[in-house]
Amino acid sequence: MKLKNDLLIRTALGEDVERPPVWLMRQAGRILPQYRALRGSLSGFKELVETPALAAEVTIQPVDELDVDAAIIFSDILVIPEAMGLTYEMVEKKGPLFPKTIESEKDIVALISGADAAAELKYVYDAIQITVKELDGRVPLIGFAGAPWTIFAYMIEGSGSKTFSKAKRFLYQHPELSHQLLQKITATTIAYLQQKVASGVSLVQIFDSWAGILTPTLFRTFALPYIKQIAAAITGVPVTVFAKGAWFALAELESIDCNVIGLDWGTSPDYARKHITKVFQGNLDPCQLYGTAKEVELAATKMVQDFGGKHIANLGHGVYPDTPLDNVRVFVDTIKSLSYAS
Amino acid sequence: MKLKNDLLIRTALGEDVERPPVWLMRQAGRILPQYRALRGSLSGFKELVETPALAAEVTIQPVDELDVDAAIIFSDILVIPEAMGLTYEMVEKKGPLFPKTIESEKDIVALISGADAAAELKYVYDAIQITVKELDGRVPLIGFAGAPWTIFAYMIEGSGSKTFSKAKRFLYQHPELSHQLLQKITATTIAYLQQKVASGVSLVQIFDSWAGILTPTLFRTFALPYIKQIAAAITGVPVTVFAKGAWFALAELESIDCNVIGLDWGTSPDYARKHITKVFQGNLDPCQLYGTAKEVELAATKMVQDFGGKHIANLGHGVYPDTPLDNVRVFVDTIKSLSYAS
Repeated sequence: MKLKNDLLIRTALGEDVERPPVWLMRQAGRILPQYRALRGSLSGFKELVETPALAAEVTIQPVDELDVDAAIIFSDILVIPEAMGLTYEMVEKKGPLFPKTIESEKDIVALISGADAAAELKYVYDAIQITVKELDGRVPLIGFAGAPWTIFAYMIEGSGSKTFSKAKRFLYQHPELSHQLLQKITATTIAYLQQKVASGVSLVQIFDSWAGILTPTLFRTFALPYIKQIAAAITGVPVTVFAKGAWFALAELESIDCNVIGLDWGTSPDYARKHITKVFQGNLDPCQLYGTAKEVELAATKMVQDFGGKHIANLGHGVYPDTPLDNVRVFVDTIKSLSYAS
Repeated sequence: MKLKNDLLIRTALGEDVERPPVWLMRQAGRILPQYRALRGSLSGFKELVETPALAAEVTIQPVDELDVDAAIIFSDILVIPEAMGLTYEMVEKKGPLFPKTIESEKDIVALISGADAAAELKYVYDAIQITVKELDGRVPLIGFAGAPWTIFAYMIEGSGSKTFSKAKRFLYQHPELSHQLLQKITATTIAYLQQKVASGVSLVQIFDSWAGILTPTLFRTFALPYIKQIAAAITGVPVTVFAKGAWFALAELESIDCNVIGLDWGTSPDYARKHITKVFQGNLDPCQLYGTAKEVELAATKMVQDFGGKHIANLGHGVYPDTPLDNVRVFVDTIKSLSYAS
């Protein structure tokens, strides 16, 4: 499918472009009234994730409503542990919950992985095919997966956590089992993302949401090598790696075979540029969108100036559900009004 | 009161010492069986905080049990909002909860502050006096307070939060009111810490627990100036500033009129030394204490070597309640067995 708007892809590939492309993490979600309406009519979050036509519908909503430069397939990083044999529930206002967690080697051995596990996620590939068809080349579709450490953290911890101390304890107490589990997650994620590419996504993003609670040494040992494996295994489309909070490993992220590094709002463009030559994605504080329209415009403009090119405009985290939609619009429109030429 | 063990103070003042002093954030707490026994006999956490003889008792427990080089007065950073007029509850397994939060200028004006508010906390000063008397100079007693931004965050948000997006929204939407509230918290904290010093603490630590969720610009605007005011107002004892997660402002922390900078586990000694010439405190990953005794010993030794002096040994965060006490002991004993001379 030939893209009519391929700005995201050209930027990710490092080409000189006219302006930064713009999209928002979590743009398909509660900020949109049409999402809330659809979601309210369903039994739960997972029904939306697992019904291809509905997932496609909400994926396209922000393209229609906000005219962003990319769509990202509506899904969840936790489909991977589920495909491997560990079911999750999404508890309203609380987040994910795993009724059973990984506690022993036996639990790890029992998990399916690789292509066998990835084959369980046909509903995602179907959603991608429907979305690509319906988008009809308007914008590229992004596919994503959680990084192995983040998926591991949920599989051990069983839910979200401020410290993920149970998951980290497992790393310290069972380093070999940890590597065994991380490798199974990695094999599954590679097969999954390759299948996503085969289904039509134009770029792949890896989210290491909990990278920031690791020490530099733990990140180097248990996170980075698996991200590298995944990035190296994806061919044909550009790859973005977003290791939230892993400022301490910024220089090492440069060594990943990927095109784009996502940044959270704690890392200034200036600091990032000193350590990495890749394209950046990010990184406005999502709370900046609670300010006035004028302040959003100024902050978005300043961000683009500070990065000074090789930049995909986004927030430094998923947009918060109670963000005023008008300010999201100002953010998107401001970026689209800018030009590197001027 | 002349200190028999003044290693912490000499180290904080930058003197050459024989080995790093060692203590643990949250050492007076659930890791100790004697703490759990006492706590179990009480109605709640606040009874312990507000009863001077009991607070003194649990403050001294880790000195008896672990032979650490410092005691830290058992209390909570949230006594400050309470003294200003905003009561909190401590909900078991959930954390702090404020039934009423700050929403408007009227709410801010209604708060008492400065010496008037600090006078409400007589039970803390009494606890300090009892503790100092009972310690009889064995080790120095540390007093502490939350940094204004962290206290502000709880006062607006009303509870703990992963994002503190409500508190951050207030910064963006009401910058002037934010400064007004931060200044009132600062004035109260100064009076409070001065009173703690007058009551006998030998060092003061300021905890900015939520510094890491700010952007560099927000930290510079709403956090740093108030920490500076407090540090400058404390005379007679050394001051430690622990701005958790504020790696992006490390160079700016150097400009605070304080002696010691606390570090979380994300910041390597090497990185910290490049930006700051002050004494450091920290920063072993609390989860490292889940490893074997041998691993704890190796990690503690490596940490001391990596800092290479001008260092107060501690964890990079409060010790987790389920940490094996024997490993805490190994951590403390390892540090105490080391010598800079060798």
